[in-house]
Amino acid sequence: MGWFTEYWTDYVKLSVRIKKHVFSKETKYQKIDIYDSYEFGRFMALDGYIMLTERDEFIYHEMIAHLPMNANPAIRKVLVIGGGDGGTVRELLRYPDVVVDMVEIDEEVVRVCREYLPLTAHAFDNPRVHLMFADGIEYVEKAEKTYDLIIVDSTDPSGPGLSLYKNEFYKNCQRLLSDEGIFINQHESPYFDDTRASMRDIHRKLKPLFPIATIYQAFIPTYPSGHWLFGYASKKTHPEFRGDEKLLASFKLKYYNKEVHQAAFALPNYVREGL
Amino acid sequence: MGWFTEYWTDYVKLSVRIKKHVFSKETKYQKIDIYDSYEFGRFMALDGYIMLTERDEFIYHEMIAHLPMNANPAIRKVLVIGGGDGGTVRELLRYPDVVVDMVEIDEEVVRVCREYLPLTAHAFDNPRVHLMFADGIEYVEKAEKTYDLIIVDSTDPSGPGLSLYKNEFYKNCQRLLSDEGIFINQHESPYFDDTRASMRDIHRKLKPLFPIATIYQAFIPTYPSGHWLFGYASKKTHPEFRGDEKLLASFKLKYYNKEVHQAAFALPNYVREGL
Repeated sequence: MGWFTEYWTDYVKLSVRIKKHVFSKETKYQKIDIYDSYEFGRFMALDGYIMLTERDEFIYHEMIAHLPMNANPAIRKVLVIGGGDGGTVRELLRYPDVVVDMVEIDEEVVRVCREYLPLTAHAFDNPRVHLMFADGIEYVEKAEKTYDLIIVDSTDPSGPGLSLYKNEFYKNCQRLLSDEGIFINQHESPYFDDTRASMRDIHRKLKPLFPIATIYQAFIPTYPSGHWLFGYASKKTHPEFRGDEKLLASFKLKYYNKEVHQAAFALPNYVREGL
Repeated sequence: MGWFTEYWTDYVKLSVRIKKHVFSKETKYQKIDIYDSYEFGRFMALDGYIMLTERDEFIYHEMIAHLPMNANPAIRKVLVIGGGDGGTVRELLRYPDVVVDMVEIDEEVVRVCREYLPLTAHAFDNPRVHLMFADGIEYVEKAEKTYDLIIVDSTDPSGPGLSLYKNEFYKNCQRLLSDEGIFINQHESPYFDDTRASMRDIHRKLKPLFPIATIYQAFIPTYPSGHWLFGYASKKTHPEFRGDEKLLASFKLKYYNKEVHQAAFALPNYVREGL
């Protein structure tokens, strides 16, 4: 039935052959679409950008969740901002003592993922998740709790995601983070001009707030350029692997392992220089 | 003037906005096209597949050349099979004592790159390169020399590249390689079914021939999935970094560095399992 096309830049586009356009809705915040595709299985797009596919969502979700959990295995209390598909929470809940507060702005995303993407959204059935539908900016402004891990699992810096890239938001996250805590955010790509500008902007905002602020990378073929970054920041915890290798092996992950953890911080020269 | 489209699979395609179709010719071996694009500058396609772009050729060429050179800095005599654009040779020649025998099957590729892609092809002007137009299969069958490094810088396993993926060819490369020598080949991608099958096939042919046979990876956005592999094989030399960091810094490379060298071998679980 044709192709779904995502413009990576004005001059580069990725097209995916579609079996079926399963669902479409304009919510208060964004346009949600669910497609069935030949190559990537079912996928969700927000405002026309692929957010996750059944085929490779494991890469993003394993790298955003297991890396901090294995840098500081004492993490218990986690705040997830965004992440309405449930994939990040699913990975966090593999650790038996973790409890998650999740703040998603768009209730419709969760509803749609529960119906169409149970692979990730089944995580919301777990009683260790406290799901709130609210604006992440306001939540961190008013919250008085302390978290061991804050993950910003947001869209790109446009639409409802935009305010999650502002100084004020980062400052509030820093305030809510325990001394040994870790702040992780999706950090765009170093490759194309637009996303590289975002990468630099995010890094320059985080660096003054955290004594430890760096980025790490993963191969995510369904995101622009396939070279995707995450931010890692902490007051005290350097990003070494300190995990329980036996526990990790029991998860039977498909991407993340101890060597990948360490290697993820080895940035190519042009990425280092682009920061 | 429209788009150049490359099918990554039957169901996924990448399209690149074109300024000008600069050159096109059907040679005895393949179709050569040169395009000027907005995002990637000038690029060459062989049989419709992007081989190199001005924008990011440095990633592939730095990773195929500097990694072995820094695993064994004593490398002097190098054989390059393929590599008609000159990028691999350009990187090798940064090391002052290296001499290169290069065997390219299609003289037209070299001629076209000399005319349209001097960024890489200028390397052929260096007297330390001995350029031969011949079939790489026959060359390694008949050669009696010993090489410290053999690089197979070929197209995918189809068209003129196909025979460079056969047992007989690998056995002859092994025979020509010094004890401390290193064999490197482009090793496809782990992500899509077709290239993953090639990856497995190549690895299963190399493993019985070399006590050390592994793969390493780089972020190459203009190749299918952006997650691209190289094969590394040797009789004796493990792939640790043993390079001269001062010399390396003097090259002002854009991708490769010591940390990237080590990290390149950290394979995600699904890639390990796919071998």
